[in-house]
Amino acid sequence: MFETILENVRNQSPLVHTITNNVTANDCANILLAIGASPIMAEDPREVEEITALASGLCLNIGTISEKKGEAMLLAGKRAAALGHPVVLDPVGAGASRLRTQTAQNILREVPCAVIRGNASEIRTLFQGNLPSRGVDSAQRITEDALEETIALAKAFAKQAGAVVAITGNIDIVADPNTAYCIRNGHPMMGRVTGCGCQLSALTAAFAAANPSNLLLAAAAAVCAMGVAGEIAHKRLAPLDGNATYRNYIIDAIYNLTSAQLEEGANYEVR
Amino acid sequence: MFETILENVRNQSPLVHTITNNVTANDCANILLAIGASPIMAEDPREVEEITALASGLCLNIGTISEKKGEAMLLAGKRAAALGHPVVLDPVGAGASRLRTQTAQNILREVPCAVIRGNASEIRTLFQGNLPSRGVDSAQRITEDALEETIALAKAFAKQAGAVVAITGNIDIVADPNTAYCIRNGHPMMGRVTGCGCQLSALTAAFAAANPSNLLLAAAAAVCAMGVAGEIAHKRLAPLDGNATYRNYIIDAIYNLTSAQLEEGANYEVR
Amino acid sequence: MFETILENVRNQSPLVHTITNNVTANDCANILLAIGASPIMAEDPREVEEITALASGLCLNIGTISEKKGEAMLLAGKRAAALGHPVVLDPVGAGASRLRTQTAQNILREVPCAVIRGNASEIRTLFQGNLPSRGVDSAQRITEDALEETIALAKAFAKQAGAVVAITGNIDIVADPNTAYCIRNGHPMMGRVTGCGCQLSALTAAFAAANPSNLLLAAAAAVCAMGVAGEIAHKRLAPLDGNATYRNYIIDAIYNLTSAQLEEGANYEVR
Repeated sequence: MFETILENVRNQSPLVHTITNNVTANDCANILLAIGASPIMAEDPREVEEITALASGLCLNIGTISEKKGEAMLLAGKRAAALGHPVVLDPVGAGASRLRTQTAQNILREVPCAVIRGNASEIRTLFQGNLPSRGVDSAQRITEDALEETIALAKAFAKQAGAVVAITGNIDIVADPNTAYCIRNGHPMMGRVTGCGCQLSALTAAFAAANPSNLLLAAAAAVCAMGVAGEIAHKRLAPLDGNATYRNYIIDAIYNLTSAQLEEGANYEVR
Repeated sequence: MFETILENVRNQSPLVHTITNNVTANDCANILLAIGASPIMAEDPREVEEITALASGLCLNIGTISEKKGEAMLLAGKRAAALGHPVVLDPVGAGASRLRTQTAQNILREVPCAVIRGNASEIRTLFQGNLPSRGVDSAQRITEDALEETIALAKAFAKQAGAVVAITGNIDIVADPNTAYCIRNGHPMMGRVTGCGCQLSALTAAFAAANPSNLLLAAAAAVCAMGVAGEIAHKRLAPLDGNATYRNYIIDAIYNLTSAQLEEGANYEVR
Repeated sequence: MFETILENVRNQSPLVHTITNNVTANDCANILLAIGASPIMAEDPREVEEITALASGLCLNIGTISEKKGEAMLLAGKRAAALGHPVVLDPVGAGASRLRTQTAQNILREVPCAVIRGNASEIRTLFQGNLPSRGVDSAQRITEDALEETIALAKAFAKQAGAVVAITGNIDIVADPNTAYCIRNGHPMMGRVTGCGCQLSALTAAFAAANPSNLLLAAAAAVCAMGVAGEIAHKRLAPLDGNATYRNYIIDAIYNLTSAQLEEGANYEVR
């Protein structure tokens, strides 16, 4: 099922406009190239509308936000949405500062997002309403006990935001209002590589751009692809290797990822 | 012939002031260190004139341009030119947005550039005039058929801009108004590594800084060096390696590049 | 002695707020993750006070400084100091431009720093007063002859600034007003990897955050850790490897560094 989704990315090679943080921009560009998409990075409010019009998908990542970048994200987001390009929002640090929370909220208010990808704490911050919050500890670890509630959060927020919602962590949940993929791929060591989440958001934008009529499946496939790559990369590690080599191997694994590897490696249940 | 050019870089270890985009700044710095030059990065208009005065070459790369960076580039460019330091312009994305086109045009108007390095589309955007454009497809691929016209474009733009012009792609052309090097080095997989072009521009600034009286040869040598490094690096790749490992191996190959390797590996004709 | 210092970092996993340059931010984040700390990067003046309050240490690196970043550093620095978080200042390029010198001086005036880490030229620029300067050549190489004077500089500046001072180069000196560690670890090839100094400053912030009552030892341990990692990484290099692979191996070595390796590998004398 994910095979066609990935093949569409490889065949269409979508151009993805990525406005992201200064820390992981290089990795985001390289993972887009690895999957067969093309990155275009522009963040000046004077040009982002034109640039995003050339692309077929947009990724907005609010890490290392600035006034100009916040302005650029709104302009690019509105234009991309008007053109029917899927917009992926990565609300990095929502809840960690008022600025981050408000920036994410502004984008959600003004830009119809196709996919929102964050950790449990970020998503919980952005959800307007009450849901039981038992079982998600401060490190965002989703226990099996808390899985049910986190699925409910993802579905409820998907309905509220009119978007596919991806909550990633030790278990990943990708949901629309009715259906949730619970994904058990990846490796804990991915938490020791900066920007794995940013890279996944960029990847999700590529998958969504190549599969605009199938956003839930596209987002689930992107999350599985990143997780399977993390597993393949981890198997390559030699005793002296650490997180820097792991970073490279994850991108390498995305570069070499076949549809068959993705299909066979994806470990999920639909709930 | 390229041997002396490279040896001058290794022996003089020129300090190269690089104002570049947020995506590939790290790679630009590391490739400068690899070739034996030293990078200095500064982009605040309040300091760029002083900083560039310490260096012996300047690289201006307009990717992820901003108001402040645009201002800084003009200040640094004028000061560097006044001091006789070669300035290399990389007009990333000229033609993709009005801002990029105008930024590149402003720099060309106000700063006497030593070398301009871009792809065929960027260079065509900046050339003021008419030339047959048959045979260069949208992906910037230069067919053998179109080679003649692209050489004519490079020479005509070199005359117009008073600079050496490097048009890079599947075939690279480095030209002054009278002479063109057609270079067939490199590997298509370099297109899957973000910032190979940015790195080449930084490298070109180092080669120009160490060979200021021989700019055509310096630029041609830099282009060959990058291409030869891409070939050496590609030969190292193992089955599980992808574009992340390739990125590292290219920089490694520049680090280990000998004059003999460059001289023997360079595959060019003069036209 | 350094064993406990490193174990405290691994066990406490301090969150380190890092405001750094655009060139090496990714490496700083990955080396913090490698040592077992967590990075948080934020540089917008509107949020840095909140963000730094979440962390337990702060690293201020003035490379690629801008008006906004300068403002953010003062705000974050004052808040961090008020909360008792150790602040590490890396005065990149002090002496290279008036802006850099003044920015570093402003931070020193307004923010009580725990550790200042720079090369001999940067530290000499910031020291207010006269000391014999014989023997430190322009490339910052500390000769054995000049060691005595450089130790005196470190101690005098430590007294003046009320901070631990780390002068790094071919020999590293880490001093408070009374005691200096002279450290002979590392490898000259580290000078060919961009941002080794930036990474060391980030690492120092992690060591200081986890050992706030033992800042001299924390800074000395961080310097030794970086040097030992540089030695371990250098031993792994194969003939075709260069500075890009070396960059990865250094971070990998920090990832795998054990307390025993640090204790046995640290090569220092106390003066």
